[in-house]
Amino acid sequence: MVSPDETMRQVEATPALVIDEPTVARNVERLANYAASHRLDVRPHTKTHKSLRMAERQVHAGATGLTTAKAGEAEVMTAASRDLLVAYPVVDEYRCRRLAAMAREGVLIRTTADSLEGVERLAAAAQAAGTTIGVLVDLDVGFHRTGVSSPAAALELAQGIDAERSLRLDGIFFYPGHVWEPVDCQGAELSRIDGLIAECVDLWGRSGLNVHIISGGSTPTAYQSHLVARQTEIRPGTYIYNDMNTVRAGFCSLEDCAATVVCTVVSTAVAGKAVIDAGTKTLTSDRNVKFPDSGHGHVVEYPDAVVVRLSEEHGELDVSRCERKPRIGERVSVIPNHVCPCVNLQDAFWMRRGDGTLERVAVDSRGRLS
Amino acid sequence: MVSPDETMRQVEATPALVIDEPTVARNVERLANYAASHRLDVRPHTKTHKSLRMAERQVHAGATGLTTAKAGEAEVMTAASRDLLVAYPVVDEYRCRRLAAMAREGVLIRTTADSLEGVERLAAAAQAAGTTIGVLVDLDVGFHRTGVSSPAAALELAQGIDAERSLRLDGIFFYPGHVWEPVDCQGAELSRIDGLIAECVDLWGRSGLNVHIISGGSTPTAYQSHLVARQTEIRPGTYIYNDMNTVRAGFCSLEDCAATVVCTVVSTAVAGKAVIDAGTKTLTSDRNVKFPDSGHGHVVEYPDAVVVRLSEEHGELDVSRCERKPRIGERVSVIPNHVCPCVNLQDAFWMRRGDGTLERVAVDSRGRLS
Repeated sequence: MVSPDETMRQVEATPALVIDEPTVARNVERLANYAASHRLDVRPHTKTHKSLRMAERQVHAGATGLTTAKAGEAEVMTAASRDLLVAYPVVDEYRCRRLAAMAREGVLIRTTADSLEGVERLAAAAQAAGTTIGVLVDLDVGFHRTGVSSPAAALELAQGIDAERSLRLDGIFFYPGHVWEPVDCQGAELSRIDGLIAECVDLWGRSGLNVHIISGGSTPTAYQSHLVARQTEIRPGTYIYNDMNTVRAGFCSLEDCAATVVCTVVSTAVAGKAVIDAGTKTLTSDRNVKFPDSGHGHVVEYPDAVVVRLSEEHGELDVSRCERKPRIGERVSVIPNHVCPCVNLQDAFWMRRGDGTLERVAVDSRGRLS
Repeated sequence: MVSPDETMRQVEATPALVIDEPTVARNVERLANYAASHRLDVRPHTKTHKSLRMAERQVHAGATGLTTAKAGEAEVMTAASRDLLVAYPVVDEYRCRRLAAMAREGVLIRTTADSLEGVERLAAAAQAAGTTIGVLVDLDVGFHRTGVSSPAAALELAQGIDAERSLRLDGIFFYPGHVWEPVDCQGAELSRIDGLIAECVDLWGRSGLNVHIISGGSTPTAYQSHLVARQTEIRPGTYIYNDMNTVRAGFCSLEDCAATVVCTVVSTAVAGKAVIDAGTKTLTSDRNVKFPDSGHGHVVEYPDAVVVRLSEEHGELDVSRCERKPRIGERVSVIPNHVCPCVNLQDAFWMRRGDGTLERVAVDSRGRLS
């Protein structure tokens, strides 16, 4: 739990993101232990923290490598790992060239594909750079965002990749982003996904293609990953910090939230309200995934307050149900709905060590949009 | 309109924010002309562009000074104007000290207040720095975010400010953020606000307090500002770029939108969809103010596409109603719902001059959260 008074006094200016190191350590260790017990590789998605310090911690805890969304993020993360997956359809000339450049420099670079056009562009860039890039076939397992729609389509794309001399067919990629059911209720859907994967593996095998990596997982499904039995690696991101999305969906408790935004109460003039100095430019407009009307985060010191409305720099708390009311100038800490885009709005965060001291740490890959 | 093919070819990496200079010039000039014809001062809110280049343009067009939300933004904007309003309740020690430091350095600094506690802290900081800070009493005229709730409360706070030797009572501040009706229908509400202001002015006058500045206005009400007859200055922000909020609410046309995000189509694998490389970390999660279900922005080249869902780095377009479908690798340009937080996610933007050439311009006060 991240809001001892002492921390809040140490932070000079608000709003400020504070990350509790002992909570991070517990979250990272818990996942590493689960994965080890199921012989799953962990390739954490760095989009959540965008921090080399955190990435290094994950690698130290046994992560096989790291995941990024963008080529620019991967360039930053090469300082923490030389085994990177850009989990994104890399189809444009710019990103293809950057991936090829990293591969040429000896980084083990993989990416995902769901189109032959993308595969051809990537192959051309790798060939021009005289290097090889690994590719996973992106299979849509139900989120309907990217990914080919059937095992037959996955096979066709796999054959296209295999035919490119500058690409290396490495396996299958999926993202179960639609699974937000409670952990106990995920079984049926995860078994269905496993069946889909099995069908792919079978088809590929019969065509003489090997599936080395089956990369899936997300924070909501992380601890049920063994139910997709053929999976070889998982890519959770949020688990390192957690947020009100994972709390309200039942995947963790408030005590597992490592990230809070320390804010100042700047106004109590409107009856029944208190206003904090964090709005959408700090907390983002992301509504809670499972409970969209539950407000824009959780105020640790005032659990009965509801963050009812955000402007860009104002967060309005309905404090009518709070027995004690926040006062002007008081500091409070807010757990955001969605920690990933919230971290992305900060140049740096305060890391609070176990002894209560704070250290300023950069959000290294913030702003790497491409 | 901001998407000639030539521009899109020039932009190396996507997603990229492109600002069309001729459109900016028209937007700035139009407001300046309106304000001049009604003898209103213009103090643009720099939260929209966070750019010295744009601020200088506004000052060049006759702006009296500039508005910021945060002290750190004001520090950046001193390079464009020495007459700044920090339109925010400055109540914490850090911000009070920063404002006092700017005032001591000769910047004409004003801020707003809605509490005696805040006033006392600000006064103490100004006194410690041996300087004077101007204060406007924040009056809630209906948005119910900050601001004292009645002319009587405004008078009481004004007297509190007037009693502080290190503060200068400068007038009244209001923000009509609740007024999003079509321009033709704003009259009744703006007249009501004017009545409220009149009551304040009268009360202050009878107590021997002068009201020098009555600062109001927003982009939606900008061109009806004369209906709040006692207003002396307006603080619109969005008007310089515009966005789908101002378009869909009827305050401008698509041709008045100066800001677009150039994106690449990265996936068309899911039937009926096309995915672009801009999600909430580029466009934000802000829903449209007047039409929350109209999607996350407008795709210029595919006006029948709907941006139905955003992930952090993916924008999903429903293209089922498009006769021609976007293709992998194609570039498209998106006008965001809310341009201010979208700009805030960029370190820099491309400014497209009238001759079609591009120049990289910094978002100078991005990341100034305090």
